[in-house]
Amino acid sequence: MTQRIHNFSAGPAVLPVEVLEEARENLLSLGKSGIGILEHSHRGKAYMAVHEEAEALVRELGGVPADYDVLFLQGGASMQFGMVPMNFLRKDQTADYLVTGAWAQKAVIEAKLFGKVHIASSSEDRNFCYIPQKSEFSASPAYIHFTSNNTIFGTQFAAEPSIPAGQKLICDASSDIFSRPIDVSKYAMIYAGAQKNLGPSGVTLAILRKDLTESGPKDIPTMLQYRTQAAEHSLYNTPPTFGIYILGLVCKWIKKQGGLTAIEKNNQEKAGKLYTYLDQSKLFKATADVGSRSQMNVTFVTGDGAKDELFIAAAKKAGLDGLKGHRSVGGMRASMYNALPQASVEALVQVMRDFEQQG
Amino acid sequence: MTQRIHNFSAGPAVLPVEVLEEARENLLSLGKSGIGILEHSHRGKAYMAVHEEAEALVRELGGVPADYDVLFLQGGASMQFGMVPMNFLRKDQTADYLVTGAWAQKAVIEAKLFGKVHIASSSEDRNFCYIPQKSEFSASPAYIHFTSNNTIFGTQFAAEPSIPAGQKLICDASSDIFSRPIDVSKYAMIYAGAQKNLGPSGVTLAILRKDLTESGPKDIPTMLQYRTQAAEHSLYNTPPTFGIYILGLVCKWIKKQGGLTAIEKNNQEKAGKLYTYLDQSKLFKATADVGSRSQMNVTFVTGDGAKDELFIAAAKKAGLDGLKGHRSVGGMRASMYNALPQASVEALVQVMRDFEQQG
Repeated sequence: MTQRIHNFSAGPAVLPVEVLEEARENLLSLGKSGIGILEHSHRGKAYMAVHEEAEALVRELGGVPADYDVLFLQGGASMQFGMVPMNFLRKDQTADYLVTGAWAQKAVIEAKLFGKVHIASSSEDRNFCYIPQKSEFSASPAYIHFTSNNTIFGTQFAAEPSIPAGQKLICDASSDIFSRPIDVSKYAMIYAGAQKNLGPSGVTLAILRKDLTESGPKDIPTMLQYRTQAAEHSLYNTPPTFGIYILGLVCKWIKKQGGLTAIEKNNQEKAGKLYTYLDQSKLFKATADVGSRSQMNVTFVTGDGAKDELFIAAAKKAGLDGLKGHRSVGGMRASMYNALPQASVEALVQVMRDFEQQG
Repeated sequence: MTQRIHNFSAGPAVLPVEVLEEARENLLSLGKSGIGILEHSHRGKAYMAVHEEAEALVRELGGVPADYDVLFLQGGASMQFGMVPMNFLRKDQTADYLVTGAWAQKAVIEAKLFGKVHIASSSEDRNFCYIPQKSEFSASPAYIHFTSNNTIFGTQFAAEPSIPAGQKLICDASSDIFSRPIDVSKYAMIYAGAQKNLGPSGVTLAILRKDLTESGPKDIPTMLQYRTQAAEHSLYNTPPTFGIYILGLVCKWIKKQGGLTAIEKNNQEKAGKLYTYLDQSKLFKATADVGSRSQMNVTFVTGDGAKDELFIAAAKKAGLDGLKGHRSVGGMRASMYNALPQASVEALVQVMRDFEQQG
């Protein structure tokens, strides 16, 4: 078998080896069924067990209250950018958006198709290198939307933003879901593309309060109403069965690691190693403000584009992949989702140290 | 390794063993990359090669003309039921629908949200057991929509319906795409959930003429405009990478079988074996009219619900799975997509013969 390398990709991203090994064993036959996981009917007993276990594990890990639906959707966060306002924003209403990066900006564009948008806060003035401390909310927003972690700019909300009591908080948690404990009851809705912390691309997890599920209009396409999949436990039509299977295996792996508290500790340790090195380095510099730094995506630069390129090439030669920063900002980005091993971060710090010493 | 059984599931369905074996080998490392197929960035060279090859194979197998886009979407045919009229049907326009089963009915419901629907033909009068010979079209329809194969009722269009010159034909080909040669130039658009003939669930193939791609409104969510994925070669956001990978492998397998002409011959042979047996059986009866019969899904009954149940149980015991008819019609259904081996059909006929002889 080919040696696996260190994968710092921003997503799709590294998955736990034991998850991949279990999937591999079930590709030609799920258990003793004689039918591979990809080939099972979504209405059959074998897949139903997979599906129900995945939902149960999400509920257990996230401590999801009973009055929330857990949905497996398709189309990624980009589809949710449109589906959220299509369901929850009327033409005469205003939704508040906290704009902390490119994904939040995209979400705003979609919301404007359906109603008014109020930018409650923005960090665009300094190219999104920080999380605003305060937001100014509109009088009675339909909902308040924020992006908990900003992959491109390496920033992350340390906790949920403070919002007025009784308001509906909706979160795009694509890049930090289940990276730390979460109090779901503080949210009206959380959604996340699976391809960073939860599994492969092609599955979107949505957790939303049942009163919200039911509040959307009924004169929009059936597949774009949250109630459709809620009523059928994400089996209204054929779901992305393999993606949900992997998501379930990843949740099982998280549970085995000790759940979200243990996962958070592990993530803090990984991010700590890299930020500690960066803060004493004379060559590399973290781009996000202290206090706004992401535990998931660490963005850094040398300050010299040509030197950045040299470093990325040196890292690649040493078996470290995916370190190129997003095309819109350049520099480097180390994505360190749940499944990235400590050893990968240690290898990265070592390569950085060597590169710096060699000048 | 567990022995594989005969899988007659209507979808997700049986896949070629060599496709599954190749996927298995690339789960922990795609080629020598050291990163599994699920874990590769959709912007990286390794996945890009997979993505481009999948599109190229679809174009090659289907003989897709250069003025058509080939898109990999999400949400299945059910999402297309809404996306098609959202893009191509204005409030004051009429779209013509040929209603040959439950899926066509669902498509009609979604179209009515956006404009007027004219039912050009329907076989509902005899529970969809036939394909209408003639349709009556409206004066100037926005498009004409039909379902080429009806999984639930076991019927299939032998060829494209005749339509007035210059009209736009749109086809839901979810359950018979690439089961036989297809003249794409006769269509404005063809779409298909992948989970029957092309791969796993979670990928939807859409082939549409570029003028159609560009004709939709721009004030609908970005992800629901065909032009979005067309402009970015299905990489506007993270695509379902693994599903597209498997779809590519399946296309490679089809090519190796000799392409769509050879696949059709194989499918005719399989369906022929089963229909030949059914037509001489004194116990079992095919439910679809001769001339309207599907090569993909063969529906049949004994005429006695209890006996149907006994047969399904006997077949299951003999290692034949997925033969239960759709919950809405009962009886039996043998789905025989491209990847179902001849041996599976032979095993089915043998079990039917034994069951009939034992009375």
